[in-house]
Amino acid sequence: MSTAKDTGKHYRTECTGLALETVKQHSEPADITFYGACFCPFVQRAWVALEYLGIPYRYYEVDPYKKPQELLEVSPKGLVPGLKLHTFHPPRGLSESTVIMEYLEDLAANTTKHALLPPITDSYARALIRLQSDHINRTLVPAFYRFLQAQDPDSQISAGQEFHAALEDLAAHFGRAECEGVSAALGLWREDGDLSWTDVMAGPWLFRASNVLAHYRFFTLPEGLKFRAYLDRLFNHPVFKRTCSTEDLYLDSYERYAWNRPNTSQVANAINSGRGLP
Amino acid sequence: MSTAKDTGKHYRTECTGLALETVKQHSEPADITFYGACFCPFVQRAWVALEYLGIPYRYYEVDPYKKPQELLEVSPKGLVPGLKLHTFHPPRGLSESTVIMEYLEDLAANTTKHALLPPITDSYARALIRLQSDHINRTLVPAFYRFLQAQDPDSQISAGQEFHAALEDLAAHFGRAECEGVSAALGLWREDGDLSWTDVMAGPWLFRASNVLAHYRFFTLPEGLKFRAYLDRLFNHPVFKRTCSTEDLYLDSYERYAWNRPNTSQVANAINSGRGLP
Repeated sequence: MSTAKDTGKHYRTECTGLALETVKQHSEPADITFYGACFCPFVQRAWVALEYLGIPYRYYEVDPYKKPQELLEVSPKGLVPGLKLHTFHPPRGLSESTVIMEYLEDLAANTTKHALLPPITDSYARALIRLQSDHINRTLVPAFYRFLQAQDPDSQISAGQEFHAALEDLAAHFGRAECEGVSAALGLWREDGDLSWTDVMAGPWLFRASNVLAHYRFFTLPEGLKFRAYLDRLFNHPVFKRTCSTEDLYLDSYERYAWNRPNTSQVANAINSGRGLP
Repeated sequence: MSTAKDTGKHYRTECTGLALETVKQHSEPADITFYGACFCPFVQRAWVALEYLGIPYRYYEVDPYKKPQELLEVSPKGLVPGLKLHTFHPPRGLSESTVIMEYLEDLAANTTKHALLPPITDSYARALIRLQSDHINRTLVPAFYRFLQAQDPDSQISAGQEFHAALEDLAAHFGRAECEGVSAALGLWREDGDLSWTDVMAGPWLFRASNVLAHYRFFTLPEGLKFRAYLDRLFNHPVFKRTCSTEDLYLDSYERYAWNRPNTSQVANAINSGRGLP
């Protein structure tokens, strides 16, 4: 697979490109302080949700590997993303990307009226989206890390097949919604669709597959016009794009995963020890 | 730890006790067919939700290890619980206990108006409950199986400590909601509370800890009046109780887990291979 060498590159601690522009536009105090790390896909989920839902926030970059006290106060495991909610006195914290996404969706329902999920009256479409998300969180995301951290050729091949199968299954989930005529559960999979909950859940890893896995594992995303067109719509969606740094930031930040350096992260350790993600 | 012998007992295929009464009351065709298995905690989650939310259903017992075609049609992995929704033509299926719970909650919001989650206007209380659920699904439930399947004394001791820590962390989540004065995120943890989302998420494993783990691993639930009183309220809640069979059914059905017999289940295999639950 990859013939590159471990050049000892370090993870980055500042956004670049369009993401940096967005950070600059969100540097003033707001009701929500958003604790992020520029390379982190779990952070990107919450960031896309904040941007899409139109919720005011201040972006605050932290180094999650140094676990500063201010991060631990909002996220007890020291993981990003974290939210600090200044509307409470004293302020309160929230952590876990999926919990934060649900919270932001609820908050938007009460304020901006934007939404990533279909309305509650469309309970079946919501259920299909939750099935898609369940697949992403429990299968696709762990498969991404197993592939990237696999070192010997045999395990790289099998982990690559596993990740590929997880992508095919995501496409199959969309295919089911198409067959059943549930367009509200298709998001950007539809040619004229808009960003949906599932796109936000999967997007950060699909994006890193297109650059990090392509570079370190010579991975090519699934063939087929439909999947390519989906990714094209996702990666070029204006909201998704403005949370993306330049490619070099991801390649640098993920080198330590690609060589499975000891203690790369809590996520990497969990994958190495056969445990669920932290 | 346990000095008992593997007596080769088989899992049961019919409810007993109060659960059997409930099955009999739900044997007529309804808009939802609920595919269950009498011993399965994931099934019990969805069952308690159906009962609490007052949604009409027909209970239909299946043997999930034989994976009958009718189950595969609603649950592609052949896992219970599954729902068959007859309001669609042709009928549609849903699977995954957490997805089914979200679906039933949405359905109830549109029909019976009962709810296990606080209203959407109370977004912070909902977020605390989702944090609690995240802990249950990703830490407490896997720790239950690792403990029950651990064979040698050392791994039984460490897995027991891990499960105990997961229970303490659940109590700590409730403690946080108490400190912050968020009573809507406390459910039955409050002396005068009612059944909540978190109670339904955790209840089936807390119950099996009180009988299966007590029998096979001499496990005692956390000391402390508060935790005991919580479990007492949970196990005696009329809705929870009417989804419970008699203790012998669980002891028989879990013997194969306690001896970690090969191919006990997809759940057991996932735990043995260090993968996330299916």
